[in-house]
This record gives sequence, structure tokens and C-alpha cells, in this order.
Amino acid sequence: MRAVELTVVKTDGAARAGRLRTPHGEVETPAFMPVATQGTVKSLSPDDLRAAGAQIILANTYHLFLRPGHDVVRELGGLHRFMAWNGPILTDSGGFQVWSLAKLRKIGEDGVEFRSHVDGSLRFLSPEICVAIQHALGVDILHPLDECLAYPATVEATERSLALTLRWLRRSVAAHGRGAGALFGIIQGGAIPELRRRAVEEVCALDLDGHAIGGLAVGEPKDVMYATTELCAGLLPADRPRYLMGVGKPADLVECVARGVDMFDCVLPTRNARNGQAFTRDGAITIRNARFARDPSPLDPECRCEACRLFSRAYLRHLFAARELLVYRLLSLHNLTFYLGLLADMRAAILEGRFEAFRARFLGRYGDSGVESLGSSDLSSTDPED
Amino acid sequence: MRAVELTVVKTDGAARAGRLRTPHGEVETPAFMPVATQGTVKSLSPDDLRAAGAQIILANTYHLFLRPGHDVVRELGGLHRFMAWNGPILTDSGGFQVWSLAKLRKIGEDGVEFRSHVDGSLRFLSPEICVAIQHALGVDILHPLDECLAYPATVEATERSLALTLRWLRRSVAAHGRGAGALFGIIQGGAIPELRRRAVEEVCALDLDGHAIGGLAVGEPKDVMYATTELCAGLLPADRPRYLMGVGKPADLVECVARGVDMFDCVLPTRNARNGQAFTRDGAITIRNARFARDPSPLDPECRCEACRLFSRAYLRHLFAARELLVYRLLSLHNLTFYLGLLADMRAAILEGRFEAFRARFLGRYGDSGVESLGSSDLSSTDPED
Repeated sequence: MRAVELTVVKTDGAARAGRLRTPHGEVETPAFMPVATQGTVKSLSPDDLRAAGAQIILANTYHLFLRPGHDVVRELGGLHRFMAWNGPILTDSGGFQVWSLAKLRKIGEDGVEFRSHVDGSLRFLSPEICVAIQHALGVDILHPLDECLAYPATVEATERSLALTLRWLRRSVAAHGRGAGALFGIIQGGAIPELRRRAVEEVCALDLDGHAIGGLAVGEPKDVMYATTELCAGLLPADRPRYLMGVGKPADLVECVARGVDMFDCVLPTRNARNGQAFTRDGAITIRNARFARDPSPLDPECRCEACRLFSRAYLRHLFAARELLVYRLLSLHNLTFYLGLLADMRAAILEGRFEAFRARFLGRYGDSGVESLGSSDLSSTDPED
Repeated sequence: MRAVELTVVKTDGAARAGRLRTPHGEVETPAFMPVATQGTVKSLSPDDLRAAGAQIILANTYHLFLRPGHDVVRELGGLHRFMAWNGPILTDSGGFQVWSLAKLRKIGEDGVEFRSHVDGSLRFLSPEICVAIQHALGVDILHPLDECLAYPATVEATERSLALTLRWLRRSVAAHGRGAGALFGIIQGGAIPELRRRAVEEVCALDLDGHAIGGLAVGEPKDVMYATTELCAGLLPADRPRYLMGVGKPADLVECVARGVDMFDCVLPTRNARNGQAFTRDGAITIRNARFARDPSPLDPECRCEACRLFSRAYLRHLFAARELLVYRLLSLHNLTFYLGLLADMRAAILEGRFEAFRARFLGRYGDSGVESLGSSDLSSTDPED
């Protein structure tokens, strides 16, 4: 029996609604995974996550390796118990973080040497170490160490990088063996369709429990992201979950569900919350704006989260202006409620065979024009990556 | 009928257990009031406050006057609705904050001119304005503008200051008139027993709904604080609530309940939480300490708060080391649960006529040696005063 298994309940065009069985319970798909970088979704408790509608969360292998250390987490009973989240947990490979956060990377066939962004210490990650870390954490879904390329990259560089990622994948599969949890294969290949095709072919030959589409949302144009997603999703086997890594804005989620993606993660809802941006059904609003100073209405009158049930925009603006900690939690709770509600709405639309109508209405009403791509100049966090 | 009224249910020595009726419900006394400086108890929601056992909270007139402005709060339906707290709210006078936070104070018979610590703007507070602000906020218990003296002060300076505070009090009483809420009289007089006696006499002549003992916890020795509290509480009428402003550490609460105080407020539980200090029944612990790195036990095995129910010391230490926002909320929730539980325990002991035994046991086991008096070098807040 596979460690995780997707049952597709209904398809509507390329969009799919399903149920993903995991060692820690079932997840309705398409699913959005809040990001618990360091073993906590920033500012939120496990109860908050449940209240927002989360069924599965993502944690970062790289961050937990550096702090507090996977040995500590294992000693404390594993990541689920450590952070008091009894639902499924997916960990990424650490590859993206090594490339985006660590300093002085030295990459070789064996693995990657780098300096920790936490304390500057010299650290080493190999495919085998990466799997061992995730085994120690005791997560439901693991990812193999991969190399992330900046966009744009030449065909030659992309090909060389993909080949290394595929060799590392085979080592990861061997290291995982019959260990607990499901190892997903990551499809790389940059913006080169031929390389993406080759990646799908070679990864799928390994008969893994699920597939991640990686190397997107790294600065490429939107049409490249959508086309690459469509290409990969269309080639990946229908009976395995498809996870699009690090995506994205609300409209991206709709567009990529339309292309057959089942799982997403992104720091946008929580990071933007900490910077004062709230998602509403009519677009994103910036709560620090002076026009909300005396606004008695909730962030979103259609939302039932704690922030919208109890508080006015005026109060939230006051808290934000005064840098009061409560506001980061309330906006994070609201934004995750929005994201998770969007996924639930998409699932309902697919089940009822009206996904195209939903997609057209959502994109017509919403658009992502107001959504800020906020960098790491995050006022309320010293951590460079959410 | 008085706006607030204390029913003393039981006395045990000088200690009293009672019920304080207010426009927003009843409060069991002795009571501790969490501090919602800017209209939020830092990092906590109204549900969190209820879960910790809070029945009444304190907000700061000075802070809400400067930001968002009392007119804004009134327009939004008053402070209870603004911050979604439907229990009683007490506001202090702003006197202490003007003296401790504002710059370039110019004090005259009419009032005090100062520069806002928020934006440097020139502002003015008089006894009348101070009452008007609190009426706009719509609070249950108001306080008159008073002058706070640094410790130590000469007899002459203390006498001059007390006289001004008493003249301001009479203007405040006139300004309050038959307005909503109860105006408490503040007893000043520094460390001079004769002046404290005179203050009690003159304030009590005004037949107010309750009395606050002010000007303590400003750097005086502990025996001076206890002696002054004992003197004032002993002279104040038994049928009115006695509120000791800004006190204190756990042992101070026990010692001052023993001297007849009914109400307390202090930033210590929440401020120390944000600096990583947790109160336990065996003393205070500093969660950032390396010895907790692999400690699987909760902060306090006797505590039932969310932090202690769900998380290990090791996890809390990890969150604190990573400066994760969740830890400030969890420690604040825990520390307030500790404080409010201590008050509930004292009340039970008084009701059962065993307060002296409780006091001896608590002080023997606890002591305040580990409790840090943390200043405003608060890592997680830009606000100089909690």
C-alpha cells in the first residue's frame, strides 16, 4: 500500500477534486498548505489553523535542520507532536532554501555545502541527509534534495542541473527505501519544455507516490508558469497527486487548478498579512491605508473568520499602526481563511461540474492587480524567508 | 445607585473577597486587570483573555487619546465594541504616562502640555479633557488626571504636588457630573504618611465610587510600598473598592491583598512574556535558557492554559530563539493564566478563612527572586510602555 494515495472523485476539464489519504488523515483536494517554515505557521496556533480550514501544512526541511535540529524534534516525539499539529505534514526538500537563503554555496556531485543563515556555521546537505532529516521529523510527505535554477537559465545549464537533480532523486529513493511517509518526485527542467518532458518521463519511471512541479514562481513570466504547469500536469499520471511548489496568488491557484494541480503552498497569505495586506473577495486591501481609519465594516463581510466576526477595519488599522502583535495573527487568520475558502469553493465547483463558470467569475471579479509580491523586508519577522 | 458597587462577601484579616458590580457585569475580587494599553492586551484576543480568566481589563487614556483618538473610538461605538471586549473596562488617568513617556512636559494649574511620544506633536491634557476622553471611550471606571512624582521627593514637593492633584480631582468630579461610569479618586502623597492621610481624608470627603492608591511602584523600596498601601487601605472606607495602581510581582499581589487591596493591574505578566519569562508555581523561568532545549515538559505541569496543554518547553524555547510570533501569545496567555489563577486562589482562601496559611505557603514556595523587572527594551514591541 502506498503511504499516501489520491482518489480522484470528479474531474471537470483538467481540474480535479479528490481525497488524499495520508498517515495523519485525509485531505480534500485541491488543497492549499499553509507554510510552517520553522515548525509554526507564523503567528498562528494549531487551533487557528483548524479554524481557518487547514487540513495539511508544509514545513521546511532546511529551517528545521538548522534550528532546532531534526535530532531535537525526533527526541521530542517528531514534528507533529513538537508543534501539536495532528494533521498531515509535508516537508519540502530544502533545495529552494539553500539557494535562496544560505551563503557561500558549494555544490558537488555528493551534495551542497553552505553557510547557515542563522549562525553562519558551515553545513552540508546531501540527498541522503535530506531524507534522514525528514525521517527524523516523521512527516507524511517527503521531498528529495534538488537543485534550483534562477530564471532565466540557458538550455545547457538547465540540462546539467536537471541531470544532477535526477541523479539525486535516485539516491533519495534509495535512501528512503521502505521508510515511513511518501517521497514525492520533483519535476525540474526550467522553462525548457523538452527538458520538462524528459524530467516527467524519468521521474515517473520511478513509480513514486506523488509528483511536485518545482522551479516555478522564481521570477518567470506568468504565461511561462502557466504553460509549464499545464505541460507537466498533462504528462503526470492521473492517479497520483500533483503538487505545484510555492504557488501562488489567488488567481494563480485558480489557473493552476484549471490545469490539473491538486496541491499548493505559498507564504503569500501569511507574509502579506504581516505587512498589512488582507485578501477579500473584491481584491486585496492594505489595512494601513488612512481611508480605513474610521471604517466600521469588517475586512470582508462574506468572511466568518475571527477578525471579520469581531473587528472593524478601523480597529485593525489602529492595531497595525500601533504595531500591536494581535493584528499579525488576525490578518494571517483572515488571509488563510480566504485561501482555504477559495480552494474549498473550487472543489465544490468541480464536484458540481461548474468549475469553468467559477473560474470566469472569480477572475472577472478579482484579478491579482492589488496583490503585492512582498519580499523579505518583513517588518514583523527577522526571518528572511517565511 | 452607584455606577459600580462592591459587595464584600468575606474578610479574613485585612484581606477581602467580594463582588464588584459594573455596567458590563460583575467582577470577583480581589481582581487582577490585564493591561490593554492601546486597546489590546498585547498579542491576545478577547477569547484569549476569557480563557485566561480575565473579568475586567485596564486601558490607557493617554495612549488612546494619542492613537487612534477618543473621537475615533466613540465613532466606532466605544472602546468595548472597538476592541470586542464586552466585560468591564477601567481606564487610568493618563497622569503616569504623561510623566513616564511624553517629552517636554509643561505643567500648570490648568493642565499639562507635552509632546506625544508617537509623533512629537504638542498635546494638552486637563482634568476636564481627561474625563471627556474617558466618557468618549465609554468605560466603566474612570480616573482623574493626577500628577505623578518621582521617588524620592521632598516633603515640600510632595505637598505641592498633592495639593494640585486634589484641585484637579475636584475639577474632574465636576466634569464627570452624572456622566456614565464610576470616577475613582486617586490617593497620592508619596512616601509621606501624613500626606497620605490628608489625601485619604480629602478624597473620601468627595464620596466617590472607589479609590485608587497611586504613586507607588515608582522605584521606592518594597517596605515603603507595603507600608503605604497598608496605611491607605486601612483608612479607606470598607464599602468601596480599593485599587492599587501598577502593582506588581506575584508576591506583591499576595502582600497587598493581605493589606486590604481589591484590584490590581500590571504589565509584568505580558511584558515579561514577550521577553521570554514564564511564571510557574515554583518561580519564574527564562524560556530562552539552553537547559530547556530538549525539555519535553510543559512550562508548568499544574497549568491548564493552551501553552501548557499543547507544547513542551523545548518547543517554546525553539519559537523564542526563532523569534516566532506565536511564542509571545503563548507566554502571555500562560502568564496571565498564572496571575489570574493566583487571584482566584487568594479569593478561595479568603472565602474559606485560610488566607494567612495560603500567604505563608505561597511566599515560602515562590518568592520573587527570579522575577525580572524588565524595562522598555522590549524586543517584540516598539511601544515604550506596555
